[in-house]
Amino acid sequence: MNRYAVIMAGGRGERFWPKSRSDRPKQFLTLAGNRSLLQQSVDRIKKMFNDDHIYIVLGRHHLKLAQEQLPELPSENFIVEPAGRNTAPCIGLAAVHIQKRDPDAGMLVFPADHLIKGDKKFLECLDKGFSWASRDDALVTIGIVPTRPETGYGYIERDAETKDQNPSVFSVKRFIEKPDLPRAEKFYGDNRYYWNSGIFIWRVPVILQRMEEEMPALYEGLQRIEAAIGTDGQATVLEEVFPHLPAISIDYGIMEKSPRILMVEGNFGWDDLGSWGALAEIADADENGMAVHGHFVGFDNENCYIQSEGSLIAAVGLQNLVIVQDGDVILVCPRHRTQDVKELVRLLKEDQREEYL
Amino acid sequence: MNRYAVIMAGGRGERFWPKSRSDRPKQFLTLAGNRSLLQQSVDRIKKMFNDDHIYIVLGRHHLKLAQEQLPELPSENFIVEPAGRNTAPCIGLAAVHIQKRDPDAGMLVFPADHLIKGDKKFLECLDKGFSWASRDDALVTIGIVPTRPETGYGYIERDAETKDQNPSVFSVKRFIEKPDLPRAEKFYGDNRYYWNSGIFIWRVPVILQRMEEEMPALYEGLQRIEAAIGTDGQATVLEEVFPHLPAISIDYGIMEKSPRILMVEGNFGWDDLGSWGALAEIADADENGMAVHGHFVGFDNENCYIQSEGSLIAAVGLQNLVIVQDGDVILVCPRHRTQDVKELVRLLKEDQREEYL
Repeated sequence: MNRYAVIMAGGRGERFWPKSRSDRPKQFLTLAGNRSLLQQSVDRIKKMFNDDHIYIVLGRHHLKLAQEQLPELPSENFIVEPAGRNTAPCIGLAAVHIQKRDPDAGMLVFPADHLIKGDKKFLECLDKGFSWASRDDALVTIGIVPTRPETGYGYIERDAETKDQNPSVFSVKRFIEKPDLPRAEKFYGDNRYYWNSGIFIWRVPVILQRMEEEMPALYEGLQRIEAAIGTDGQATVLEEVFPHLPAISIDYGIMEKSPRILMVEGNFGWDDLGSWGALAEIADADENGMAVHGHFVGFDNENCYIQSEGSLIAAVGLQNLVIVQDGDVILVCPRHRTQDVKELVRLLKEDQREEYL
Repeated sequence: MNRYAVIMAGGRGERFWPKSRSDRPKQFLTLAGNRSLLQQSVDRIKKMFNDDHIYIVLGRHHLKLAQEQLPELPSENFIVEPAGRNTAPCIGLAAVHIQKRDPDAGMLVFPADHLIKGDKKFLECLDKGFSWASRDDALVTIGIVPTRPETGYGYIERDAETKDQNPSVFSVKRFIEKPDLPRAEKFYGDNRYYWNSGIFIWRVPVILQRMEEEMPALYEGLQRIEAAIGTDGQATVLEEVFPHLPAISIDYGIMEKSPRILMVEGNFGWDDLGSWGALAEIADADENGMAVHGHFVGFDNENCYIQSEGSLIAAVGLQNLVIVQDGDVILVCPRHRTQDVKELVRLLKEDQREEYL
């Protein structure tokens, strides 16, 4: 069974506005380190996958940017979604492309915009996942050992017993939506609960069979798309069919309904970097908790995350703020309110102030 | 006795950085209304003074800007200080210019960068001041009836009794430096205490005589400058003499030492607008205390003063902040810390980051 990786890079990443704009979502940004999150995602798996076994699924508007960032990948490995239809159609589209090329492929899929520390542990995890996906025809997910009572992530509850005495592989008992704080604290204190990373591994025939069983409309559409791959009608059929596929997540459409899901325990550093506040948490800060990128002058400031693209940020007496300047926009917001950046973006859309989006 | 007005426009106004920069200090800015503070100062007194009786004292670098803002004033009424030497030399320089033209002139002098509301009351006050300056050869100052226990201003204590039964004219008992809050509260609760406005009225021969008595080095320098006015050597002598005059304020050099000072009570609205925080106090705000000038998007904000020259300020969940964007600088600071903007400017000077000054 050959191994293929699919990186989902179709997100809009509005919570990183104003740095992320419609023409440059989060996964294409250099938020940490000096490579974009997408580039880091590819770099991370190169020890396990040849370049031509790595696929990127993304929106048409970002194709040029992605190809510039990843010149080493063959152009046919960039799969364009004509519309954003959530993760089940995205994964299905990648699956039929890979199946056309290699009918018994193993497939890893994960989002481009997560931060992962500890590449070696990550790859070991993936390797274990591929083994079990091949051995048991299982759908495999990676469960992250929680490091805090996070309310921003979904959780996985595993069975009490390990799978066949393998210490880091379990059957999944259930998937759990984002909890409130008391429940998150309960999960954090109980070793049967893990963060749902959105990283999945399976054999391509297995995931397509599950789609046929659970999401027949999706499956039927994917069959039409697959039949057209390599023909003159490929683009036309994709444009016709894909935008009408059911916009459902793989978690909701398949994973939560499947009896035979395995979870490989992951204890590498993982963060979905869902907001400026999350980024502030992992940023290198000085002894006053100040993490500053860009031109700055100030004193008596504590626990602020400041990022300037070109302007000078001048600050006195601030605490627990995020300040981000990008182009003609300046965001100022307490660290614990950065989830509300999405609402700012919504207000700008509502007012048709497209120049800022 | 003819009446002349002298407006001191030599200040640097660093506390309004980044809006005020070295080439454009506070008095030349449109901080409130749609005319600069200097223009407003001139507009305000036009009912009492002919244009050619209004003098502006200022630094060389700002002459062009001032003449552009005040095209109606004769060019010879702009008096350039070769260096900033505090208010006593500034006032002395204007006094000798006026004396050369009109040996028995009455002279009003006040800073260009104060905000005054209630022009009619202001002019009535000045009229009364000129009358007493002429009648008693007194040095007259305007004392402002305090409207809050302000610690940012100097105070004047007046005699208990009015002068000759005139209800708003008193002898000055003493000048008081900026007080701490308990003293400011005491002054605020006692009708013998007034804010020291820095607005003075006197006969030119009287102030020059007081300078001769109390500040002989200053007086001697002024004599040399006066002798050269209208000659070929005027500029050379000014350049030679002025930068070495004692850099002392008129309050310290003359007023605090003079026995015969009268105070006219002023109860027009007055503010020296010493900081962004002071400007925020007088700015029109909405029901949440938000005063916003420029492009903005936000919600859940309270009591913030926001001024943007061109950028979009995006804010969520902020309280009691001042945010000012001007060119490539963004200032973010709690309202009660805006006095510290001077320190930011000092740090930038120290680091020779001239591009921001």
